Amino acid sequence: MSVLMGISKAGLKPSGREDLLVVYFEKPLPVSAVYTKNYFKAAPVIHSQNLTDRRKEFRAFVVNSGNANCGTGEEGLRHAELMAERVAKNLNLKREEVLVFSTGIIGVPLPIDRVLEAIDTACGNLEPLDLKRASEAISTTDRFPKYAREKYAFGFGKGAGMIHPNMATMLAYVFTPAKLDYEELRKIHLEVNEKTFNSITVDGCTSTNDSFLLISLNEEEIPASRVKEDVFKVSQKIAKLIVADGEGATKVGIVRVINALHREKAKAIAEKVAVSELVKTALFGCDPNWGRIAAAAGSVPDYPINPNSLSIYIGEYKLLERGTPTDVNLEEVAKYMREHKEVLITVDLGEGNADWTYYTSDLTYDYVKLNAEYTT
Amino acid sequence: MSVLMGISKAGLKPSGREDLLVVYFEKPLPVSAVYTKNYFKAAPVIHSQNLTDRRKEFRAFVVNSGNANCGTGEEGLRHAELMAERVAKNLNLKREEVLVFSTGIIGVPLPIDRVLEAIDTACGNLEPLDLKRASEAISTTDRFPKYAREKYAFGFGKGAGMIHPNMATMLAYVFTPAKLDYEELRKIHLEVNEKTFNSITVDGCTSTNDSFLLISLNEEEIPASRVKEDVFKVSQKIAKLIVADGEGATKVGIVRVINALHREKAKAIAEKVAVSELVKTALFGCDPNWGRIAAAAGSVPDYPINPNSLSIYIGEYKLLERGTPTDVNLEEVAKYMREHKEVLITVDLGEGNADWTYYTSDLTYDYVKLNAEYTT
Repeated sequence: MSVLMGISKAGLKPSGREDLLVVYFEKPLPVSAVYTKNYFKAAPVIHSQNLTDRRKEFRAFVVNSGNANCGTGEEGLRHAELMAERVAKNLNLKREEVLVFSTGIIGVPLPIDRVLEAIDTACGNLEPLDLKRASEAISTTDRFPKYAREKYAFGFGKGAGMIHPNMATMLAYVFTPAKLDYEELRKIHLEVNEKTFNSITVDGCTSTNDSFLLISLNEEEIPASRVKEDVFKVSQKIAKLIVADGEGATKVGIVRVINALHREKAKAIAEKVAVSELVKTALFGCDPNWGRIAAAAGSVPDYPINPNSLSIYIGEYKLLERGTPTDVNLEEVAKYMREHKEVLITVDLGEGNADWTYYTSDLTYDYVKLNAEYTT
Repeated sequence: MSVLMGISKAGLKPSGREDLLVVYFEKPLPVSAVYTKNYFKAAPVIHSQNLTDRRKEFRAFVVNSGNANCGTGEEGLRHAELMAERVAKNLNLKREEVLVFSTGIIGVPLPIDRVLEAIDTACGNLEPLDLKRASEAISTTDRFPKYAREKYAFGFGKGAGMIHPNMATMLAYVFTPAKLDYEELRKIHLEVNEKTFNSITVDGCTSTNDSFLLISLNEEEIPASRVKEDVFKVSQKIAKLIVADGEGATKVGIVRVINALHREKAKAIAEKVAVSELVKTALFGCDPNWGRIAAAAGSVPDYPINPNSLSIYIGEYKLLERGTPTDVNLEEVAKYMREHKEVLITVDLGEGNADWTYYTSDLTYDYVKLNAEYTT
């Protein structure tokens, strides 16, 4: 069983680079999909979600980059349908066996004729899936391609926050050779998604086009726990690459909340710390400012923390111990922050056994520059 | 009935400016207080909240700026008590008739001896309340004083987001001459608070020390609706001054959500748009980027919007009409944004009659500079 791809150009990117990817499976494969929870959804998301709600197996998907086909009304939906139809016609499939994804600028109609021609070209030049080239073909403002491979899973993705005037979507496609029925696949998918793509933030903004697929190749008998491990590793690696490629980012912050009463609380507090503009600027400034971390951790409305059981670490350095500042050498902590691209922030709630990890980027001059300077 | 104040210096500010304010009421007055909802609360907030939970009338309050007395453990609580005790001793009051507030750096013990001496000095030099000077005495990183006066209300405050290494608290004290019992006062207070200080954002971060008091002077019979109107105006003016003084801010964004199903939904969506880093950088860049506004409006988990009934305006310009982009001249909209310090963003959900307004600042290079460059 092999996965094939075809790549071509519809002329959607200012750079003129490849912007259309068709991925084809030789037989129907179980596909589990999760989409953005944004209510202002792009047309291809509406289209594909309708399909994955009704069917469990698919034969192909098509992705165009450079145009999100979002905020494009009825016409946008028709364009998504036309894309699926054209792939189906070329590959002798049913239209409903083809999923559609788009990423790029919002509110601009797709030049549909050029897109359909590019689909013809891509379908006429199928070759084995190349993760790096597939990632490049679906990239928009990404500075580098995103892909990963483990023994029992491999995948590719794209995403780097949102750059004007685009909404730079996060897209990821992960495959496993494991023989799994849809229910098993779905269970692994949702669990991994929560811990990877649902635990990263660049700017706290939910795109209109985000999609993440897990696809089973149905080739080998592999224990589900082993599959999950590798699907997690591949997804986590792609997720971290997206954060590292965050707009203007110079660092990845790994925010770990430990010893919480339960996972939901650990996650909510990790998220609050990870999206805090004050924590993110402190990360950029290599400033071991535990007060900002404590204030963020304390500000989740439904999850009280007890200041007297709260401890905070940066790297291995303990800055706050059960509510009282330690006499740690702050200059040494700042040095650790300066010398590491990945900075570990640990928030110990001291009340239970649950933990959660969230990944974030720092907030830099370049973030403001990228998002403010380029005007319509 | 008059309100007196005493101002002095405890040497808590690097600038060496006045940093201690005592406010004294000639007779016990009904005081309604609201505090930060952060669980990592400062010692004076814990102290004062304990008092206002049990009592409804007070005789004085004391505020020091330059040190938040937060993250200071048991010692911090003792310091807050000592401050109340010292004011009480000087003014011949009971300790529990005195409220205590602090704002400034986190995690550093108060130099309590100097603070207590400064309280003696302030209490020995009482004079009629001067709103501007009172605001200056409690300011930290503020660029200008914040106060306002209407016929039936007057008040002062401070706040400008959070600047390293401080958590710059928001504090506000509003008075009305109206004869009101505590319950009436409380009702007006909570309602006004929701629409003013609970509807502003500089960086989405909840400080550890935020406090807002409404105090009745019990002098005149005034209809409650009239009182509320003026308390609202004064509070709104102080709240807008805080946003305008937001760290590095060049503009105030007025985010209005209209025609929502109900107020909670209007407020939740207005808040999401107001805290969006992408909307805030677009505001800075004078970029009429309606896609970011739509994406933010659509991303509140519990409140679905219908893209096909969504319209978006900047100023008087309609950019999106019931889900479809208009042919507005975007250069004219950008010009409106460049030429106004206050930029109006209207999100019309087209589904009901409820509305809410949120105030936000733009996200600028100076915000990043202020929060990243000054390291501990």
